[in-house]
Amino acid sequence: MTPSPLNDLSRLCVHTITTKPWPIEEASERYVAAGVPGITVWRQWLEGREPAAVGRQLQAAGLEVVSVARGGFFPAPDRAGRNAAIDDNRRAIDETAALGAPVLVLVCGAVPGQPLSVSRDQIADGIAAVLDQAKACNVKLAIEPLHPMYADSRSAINTLGQANDMCDRLADAQVGVAVDVYHLWWDPNLEAEIARCSRDSRLLAFHVSDWRTPTEDLLNDRGLMGEGCIDVPQIRGWVEQAGFHGFVEVEIFSHRYWAMDQGQFLEDIKQAYLNHT
Amino acid sequence: MTPSPLNDLSRLCVHTITTKPWPIEEASERYVAAGVPGITVWRQWLEGREPAAVGRQLQAAGLEVVSVARGGFFPAPDRAGRNAAIDDNRRAIDETAALGAPVLVLVCGAVPGQPLSVSRDQIADGIAAVLDQAKACNVKLAIEPLHPMYADSRSAINTLGQANDMCDRLADAQVGVAVDVYHLWWDPNLEAEIARCSRDSRLLAFHVSDWRTPTEDLLNDRGLMGEGCIDVPQIRGWVEQAGFHGFVEVEIFSHRYWAMDQGQFLEDIKQAYLNHT
Repeated sequence: MTPSPLNDLSRLCVHTITTKPWPIEEASERYVAAGVPGITVWRQWLEGREPAAVGRQLQAAGLEVVSVARGGFFPAPDRAGRNAAIDDNRRAIDETAALGAPVLVLVCGAVPGQPLSVSRDQIADGIAAVLDQAKACNVKLAIEPLHPMYADSRSAINTLGQANDMCDRLADAQVGVAVDVYHLWWDPNLEAEIARCSRDSRLLAFHVSDWRTPTEDLLNDRGLMGEGCIDVPQIRGWVEQAGFHGFVEVEIFSHRYWAMDQGQFLEDIKQAYLNHT
Repeated sequence: MTPSPLNDLSRLCVHTITTKPWPIEEASERYVAAGVPGITVWRQWLEGREPAAVGRQLQAAGLEVVSVARGGFFPAPDRAGRNAAIDDNRRAIDETAALGAPVLVLVCGAVPGQPLSVSRDQIADGIAAVLDQAKACNVKLAIEPLHPMYADSRSAINTLGQANDMCDRLADAQVGVAVDVYHLWWDPNLEAEIARCSRDSRLLAFHVSDWRTPTEDLLNDRGLMGEGCIDVPQIRGWVEQAGFHGFVEVEIFSHRYWAMDQGQFLEDIKQAYLNHT
């Protein structure tokens, strides 16, 4: 089912990493000037700044802080490493609350050579350890399944089915999932697993970009919507049928786009959002 | 369960593309001198040669031709393209038989932007169209599921579950699967899907290599066994529990290894085979 077209920018959110050359102040000013109402803040953009002050500035500028990226990376070979990750996630939750964002996105982590099943147990333990703080801060945690090409070192959760399983295992209203078309488009079970999210409104975030052919870099060669092989509108339709009507977040890592004029790139994002999302 | 160690080279097979700088004659001579008993021939190595003559030479040298790579690439936007693919697969089956190999490996194909479900239907139709010829030539067809990072243009079959589903759909003893650890290691259902292969001995080929961290190229940065994060012995154990005791095929695409002395590389392959497979 094709969803209703996106006729205006009211649900458009851009990740600060998408326009990586811009510091947070410039991103804020440019997004507002371009009519982009939502911003997702990567934690690197907070360095040397006070999160609550940044949150006030963004809101005063008229932006909605949609989510914060990213917590996670819970697995580690030893207890000290896992405790450090838990501490860092507590800080990330604090920062999310200070920014006034409702959601912290989790890239769950993996340790090369450690069995993925062990990493998944460590992920479950890590998330469980920060649930109280998430609840106290009124921050939801969105497990983002990552493409299987990142299973070695970035995430042992590589399908939406696994993310849903992890939510079932944790069984806590504070935990949900983030659906990113780049990571999940290839999965024959995607429609069914998105539908599974509707049960308890656990679908907390929706990220868009596109898969270019050929893709020349495992990390930083994402495309604009419409530029690749992903049927983004179809997946948006499934997401909306599952009850999600929040922001559509443009998250693009691209050496190619970071090298171009970012003002022009932001205009291209708007067009791709209106015409191919 | 850890499988029995590989104490000798009796099950070692090397793909001609693994030692890409060597033409078929040199590969044959070097493999035999190194004590490698099996060879899988990529079709490019037959260019300008008579397959039956190559097969006689390889067998006279004492090599077993384990399989031929590769058929497949069935999907195409139009009927003419799909018919051309079927014709090419018929030629590949003939070449496989002429070489005296029992198996043709299929990289099934995909068309960027065409729904994966459509490509899968075209794959099923394409395989069905060549079954008679495969039977007449006594060649088995091994569907090789490819890593999801190749779903855009190389294969719409990206998990062993999907390959098993395709076998069920075709329901023909001529069709089975190839298990390649590089493509499948990340899948939480891998053990169960390998066990599913045992029902009708449909597991026809077993390919090994390793996943390096970081992987710097989507195609040509595979590692030697033991060099990356894949638990190759564990997967070999599952494969053997499913009843497969054929050749263990080393299939490595690597700019790094192709640039080194291929004689030394072949020695490294033997060590990696004995110690990390």
